[in-house]
Amino acid sequence: MKNTISGLLEINKVSTSKIDQVDFDNLNFGSVFTDHMFVCDYKNGAWQTPKIVPYGPLTLDPSARVFHYGQAVFEGMKAYKDDHGDTYLFRPDENFKRINKSSERLAIPEFPEDYFFEGLNTLLKLEDAWIKPGVGNSLYIRPFVIATQASVSASEANEYKFMIICSPAQSYYSGDVSVLVAEKFSRSASGGFGYAKAAGNYAGQFYPTKLAKDQGYQQIIWTDSNAHEYVEEAGTMNVFFRINDTLLTAPISDRILDGVTRKSLIALAEKQGIKVEVRPIKVSEIVEAVKNGSLKEIFGAGTAAVVSPVKAFGYKGEHYELEKQDNSYASHFKSALMDIQYNKAEDSFGWRYKI
Amino acid sequence: MKNTISGLLEINKVSTSKIDQVDFDNLNFGSVFTDHMFVCDYKNGAWQTPKIVPYGPLTLDPSARVFHYGQAVFEGMKAYKDDHGDTYLFRPDENFKRINKSSERLAIPEFPEDYFFEGLNTLLKLEDAWIKPGVGNSLYIRPFVIATQASVSASEANEYKFMIICSPAQSYYSGDVSVLVAEKFSRSASGGFGYAKAAGNYAGQFYPTKLAKDQGYQQIIWTDSNAHEYVEEAGTMNVFFRINDTLLTAPISDRILDGVTRKSLIALAEKQGIKVEVRPIKVSEIVEAVKNGSLKEIFGAGTAAVVSPVKAFGYKGEHYELEKQDNSYASHFKSALMDIQYNKAEDSFGWRYKI
Ligand SMILES: Cc1ncc(COP(=O)(O)O)c(C=O)c1O
Ligand SMILES: Cc1ncc(COP(=O)(O)O)c(C=O)c1O
Repeated sequence: MKNTISGLLEINKVSTSKIDQVDFDNLNFGSVFTDHMFVCDYKNGAWQTPKIVPYGPLTLDPSARVFHYGQAVFEGMKAYKDDHGDTYLFRPDENFKRINKSSERLAIPEFPEDYFFEGLNTLLKLEDAWIKPGVGNSLYIRPFVIATQASVSASEANEYKFMIICSPAQSYYSGDVSVLVAEKFSRSASGGFGYAKAAGNYAGQFYPTKLAKDQGYQQIIWTDSNAHEYVEEAGTMNVFFRINDTLLTAPISDRILDGVTRKSLIALAEKQGIKVEVRPIKVSEIVEAVKNGSLKEIFGAGTAAVVSPVKAFGYKGEHYELEKQDNSYASHFKSALMDIQYNKAEDSFGWRYKI
Repeated sequence: MKNTISGLLEINKVSTSKIDQVDFDNLNFGSVFTDHMFVCDYKNGAWQTPKIVPYGPLTLDPSARVFHYGQAVFEGMKAYKDDHGDTYLFRPDENFKRINKSSERLAIPEFPEDYFFEGLNTLLKLEDAWIKPGVGNSLYIRPFVIATQASVSASEANEYKFMIICSPAQSYYSGDVSVLVAEKFSRSASGGFGYAKAAGNYAGQFYPTKLAKDQGYQQIIWTDSNAHEYVEEAGTMNVFFRINDTLLTAPISDRILDGVTRKSLIALAEKQGIKVEVRPIKVSEIVEAVKNGSLKEIFGAGTAAVVSPVKAFGYKGEHYELEKQDNSYASHFKSALMDIQYNKAEDSFGWRYKI
């Protein structure tokens, strides 16, 4: 991981920042963007000179492949500011590796490591004023790649755009969520690309989620598409179950995103002597555990919400409520992780990356 | 189906056509577009006034949802010109119904029927010079919808663009293809959206297809994602097998696109007394049939290539060649279908739609 700024990048700064127009106390997630963005074009078989330019619209031919064939991948990261005004990323090497893993599966050319880190460093230094201190505040960072070649022929493109855009995010408490366990709809197939952070994995979830919302559930816990027998993950989070004092989470497969938060929680739990079982988890096992009282917690884990407690779930027409726990694992892990992210605790794993 | 032009549309014509710059004898599929395009925006809960405007680039925010979450669907149709200079579409009501079926699954608002047909009629009349006579020549028509809302929140958008773009296409013979039967990779999941013509169903096929090409196969025949035991469809075609004199094709499911060509071939075969079995087809059955000589033909069926004969297939490391047939079903059906499309044969099913 490099942390230098060489002369690789072309930089074109805005003359006036729009930051004064932003109400940082009332941010809608992902809808306000900073002054600049990082852009790098792929053409003639190579990534061209990366640029930082004023944030602004893209001009694309209506036949650009991304509109027709969904050749697009992305990442989701956050920058955190500590009390000294220093900015940190959390395990950005994981996001870098993952976007290239996603790209490979989607037949998109891999992006160079030095461009990625130099782009991030330069952009975040430039946008320093947008990263507000205070635990919970962050700058959400969205690297993404889209196929831009103008042609509706159904094959991989020969032109792409790699971009990084940034959106200030606020700490918010959305309340504990209720989730529906999928019985009919699926998120991904064995042999498919569910493990990739690819655009095509998301749009298919909106309709089933809408139906779940009609039943009073905010999210879906996806199950295997073969028989809907095993729990897999949620729409933008991996999922943990606490049975008595043991944490369970499904193993990574070609259907499940290898979440950075998930693997960090597993490492933290192991270090703290909390037993973690990474193994296939039957829905029936969870139902039995909620009935006999051994299911203490369910929570989601992901960059956006960090740790998101689940208060109830629906399955086969039944609604199961979980008892509120004092000293929940969810709140414990959330604090432990955020303390590392905001430079309030020792970073024994070397997860922080200083900008 | 309406065939009128009311005052619904706003039309903004180009001052000079670019048609003289186009070499109609050397067209790359899907890369040259006509002078105009149809555009209709969805916002504030409604489709706005549809417009025909000069073909040109789209301007979208980098956070537009289509780039991140693949909320996009499309259709593929063709306009055919007969010897009298009249233009026809083939079963456009099927494409209209299908794009709305796709939209529903992707949580995109349905598009109004009168806007669709009025848009098509007006656009095709305007682009009449781009539709060249001669069997095989056509104007490829690409209706599509993309989520344009500027925000990277992972949920369905509240703003969309419905567009129709048109690209002149030539008759070409790409040679009989060799296909690889999928053993590991999958196209779609049960409970997923494989039956929708959604962007996210295509990008995932490029990488496995690249690997197949390295082995000398041009396309993949997808199998069920559970066990790879049953043949399903190809990347942009449904698939037929002829065993002795019986045609076999897989039943439509939530994993398979309900192709207009497929259903037309089934109807034609039945009318002509050719036996068609629509049922699950095991890969093992096809392998057995090629070994005992009863497998006479395999062919793909889709709007772009009409009927595309397969000359060989690979499966589990074995390569199976099919014997060349005189009077093949493939060539018979291709002619029968194109005769209807180009107004050279009686249209007993009422499939032609005159512009
Ligand atoms: C499908 C899916 N699962 C899980 C996660 C959690 O991954 P991470 O912890 O790396 O943010 C995400 C993304 O945030 C996701 O999109
Ligand atoms: C996945 C897939 N299957 C089959 C087909 C064939 O459908 P149609 O005959 O309607 O063109 C297409 C599209 O052309 C397709 O994209």
